[in-house]
Amino acid sequence: MKNIYIIGIGLIGGSFARDLRRHLPEATIYGIDTNEQHIIEAQSLGLIDAAATQKDLVKADLVVLAIPVDIAVHVLPDVLNHIGENTLVIDMGSTKQAICEAVASHPQRRNFLACHPIAGTEFSGPSAAIEGLYNGKTNIVCEVEKTAFKLQEKVLELFKKMGMRMRYMDPVSHDKHIAYMSHLSHISAFMLGKTVINKEKNERDIFDMAGSGFASTVRLAKSNPVTWTSIFKQNKTNVLKTLEEYIANLNEFKALMEADNFQGIHDEMENTNHIKEILNGIK
Amino acid sequence: MKNIYIIGIGLIGGSFARDLRRHLPEATIYGIDTNEQHIIEAQSLGLIDAAATQKDLVKADLVVLAIPVDIAVHVLPDVLNHIGENTLVIDMGSTKQAICEAVASHPQRRNFLACHPIAGTEFSGPSAAIEGLYNGKTNIVCEVEKTAFKLQEKVLELFKKMGMRMRYMDPVSHDKHIAYMSHLSHISAFMLGKTVINKEKNERDIFDMAGSGFASTVRLAKSNPVTWTSIFKQNKTNVLKTLEEYIANLNEFKALMEADNFQGIHDEMENTNHIKEILNGIK
Repeated sequence: MKNIYIIGIGLIGGSFARDLRRHLPEATIYGIDTNEQHIIEAQSLGLIDAAATQKDLVKADLVVLAIPVDIAVHVLPDVLNHIGENTLVIDMGSTKQAICEAVASHPQRRNFLACHPIAGTEFSGPSAAIEGLYNGKTNIVCEVEKTAFKLQEKVLELFKKMGMRMRYMDPVSHDKHIAYMSHLSHISAFMLGKTVINKEKNERDIFDMAGSGFASTVRLAKSNPVTWTSIFKQNKTNVLKTLEEYIANLNEFKALMEADNFQGIHDEMENTNHIKEILNGIK
Repeated sequence: MKNIYIIGIGLIGGSFARDLRRHLPEATIYGIDTNEQHIIEAQSLGLIDAAATQKDLVKADLVVLAIPVDIAVHVLPDVLNHIGENTLVIDMGSTKQAICEAVASHPQRRNFLACHPIAGTEFSGPSAAIEGLYNGKTNIVCEVEKTAFKLQEKVLELFKKMGMRMRYMDPVSHDKHIAYMSHLSHISAFMLGKTVINKEKNERDIFDMAGSGFASTVRLAKSNPVTWTSIFKQNKTNVLKTLEEYIANLNEFKALMEADNFQGIHDEMENTNHIKEILNGIK
């Protein structure tokens, strides 16, 4: 793969570029971004070699789509209109149903591989890009059978080099499960942050009381609002369901406390302790 | 300080012992614990030199109380009955009102300093003890004026050596604010863990989808249920208040999503983003 185009050169696209530099040093990396400042930054950070436009995509071996998911569904069909016969297009979005539907009957559907590398940090923009972000992470691939085998092959080898573990799933299941495993955590963190800020906004000193436990639980509340609004919009039904269950569990916990049922409180926590085993292997 | 007694030799007491080894190498450290296995473990790990009982406390220079807060309120008055004239007793509990009230009119009140070092991990027991746990952490001291100045002095110097930053607060304010800054995070994490486990218990593969974001948000759900039941019991009123506000914020977020008000969702997250600045300086 000689010519690689990254559309959206922020945390996700930029980190991918850093790994490309390492594993495909001979490739030329082009950046496409509506934010001109990001292009300049990405170039000065060495993430990309040059800026490009959609018209150039005909020369691409690989196109990486790393933009907010609700924009990606509109951009992807157009990208597929511009590519060459042997171009592979991958996306990196946190939702998979809408994007797979958007190109289901596109004549170049076989040039597209729907991916979701479960990796990220709470930061954003080209300067947040880090080498090795994808190392040891799970990459969920959806509808793999709809992508030309020859094209899959070359990128799966690259993913492997980057240290990713591949999992195959249908887009509907992906969106349902990822709502529990990722999207709900973000709402939980954002609302924890809001609750504390609302209460303590006039008491700066109070934040000296924040320990590493609070910092860890609230970390995702630093995440990019544009990225996440886009995800919540696209995965609305699944996310609402997880949110309902979460609120119901919190109300149950509250009712146990109000009833002074502290044995019940203890058992709730003990039963949840086995999240330990589940999390084994995740840093 | 030659003779130091640690009552409760788990994560908190054990980590304190590790720092004592470094900063007061000449001191003899005794352990008191109702869990005999913990005493054996603590001794083999070098956290303590020998086991002791309450009767020995008359010889103590320093007694460190590091047991669940609802037990501490009963143990502390008895400890004060057994100490010598120049013994200082400190506690390490996450709630301060009940313990200060429990000894308010005790004849040895001036031998007690109410402390809350905001430090910990999600693990427990002597084997979880780590050196340097208190380094860079805030230690909230309550009712400092009720402790004999000479006795305060020697332990404040030790805290400083361990790298702690001192803050002074009344116990009622402490318990109110710590409910937001620490206790609520634990409930939020435990119920997130519960929601996900309930949903996904029959789908082991799904946990491959857990990324570092989920791991961070749910981390505190590994915490010790005995420690935390005890804290929720003692700080019930404040914790219930934070929990109500948290649930109200989650319901509001849910209502915005149901109404397809994604500009509102965006603004909620953007307003909370400034948790970044608040968390600056917390690892």
